[in-house]
Amino acid sequence: MPDLMIDHREKAHALLKADADKILRLIEVQIENLTMPQCPVYEDVLDTQMYGLSREIDFAVRLELISEIEGKALLENLEKKLNILHEASQNTL
Amino acid sequence: MPDLMIDHREKAHALLKADADKILRLIEVQIENLTMPQCPVYEDVLDTQMYGLSREIDFAVRLELISEIEGKALLENLEKKLNILHEASQNTL
Repeated sequence: MPDLMIDHREKAHALLKADADKILRLIEVQIENLTMPQCPVYEDVLDTQMYGLSREIDFAVRLELISEIEGKALLENLEKKLNILHEASQNTL
Repeated sequence: MPDLMIDHREKAHALLKADADKILRLIEVQIENLTMPQCPVYEDVLDTQMYGLSREIDFAVRLELISEIEGKALLENLEKKLNILHEASQNTL
């Protein structure tokens, strides 16, 4: 496999991972500052960001830079972490 | 440049072009069937689709599969076509 080809794959993985982490941090900050995840603004921001990430993942899958399974795992992993954050914030109310 | 590398670039261009065309067709169908582009549903669908495409383009730029200028041109070209569609539909009301 040519080096540059591997580079695209690795870069795609790194970018998607970084974008998922960015959503996680964004939601962490929102929870810390609003302390109300039931706020509609919170839901809107999260929905928009998750949609954006899912479009990036779908694009990477269609380009065969990541597999469908990897893409699904990335989203599910992020959702799991967001649920943990959300539950933790509910318990401190 | 390795063949597979060129293939990623070409495929990225083809996918983004196809996605832009899909938005255009979607809006054409919406205009034909609703004959009211000022409808909030129309605006929502368009906003969501444009945001999704812009995220794909941004991702392709970061992967260096397309240049920033090409990405911008693709979005602007689509916006121009959508404006023409929109104006044409207004004139037939």
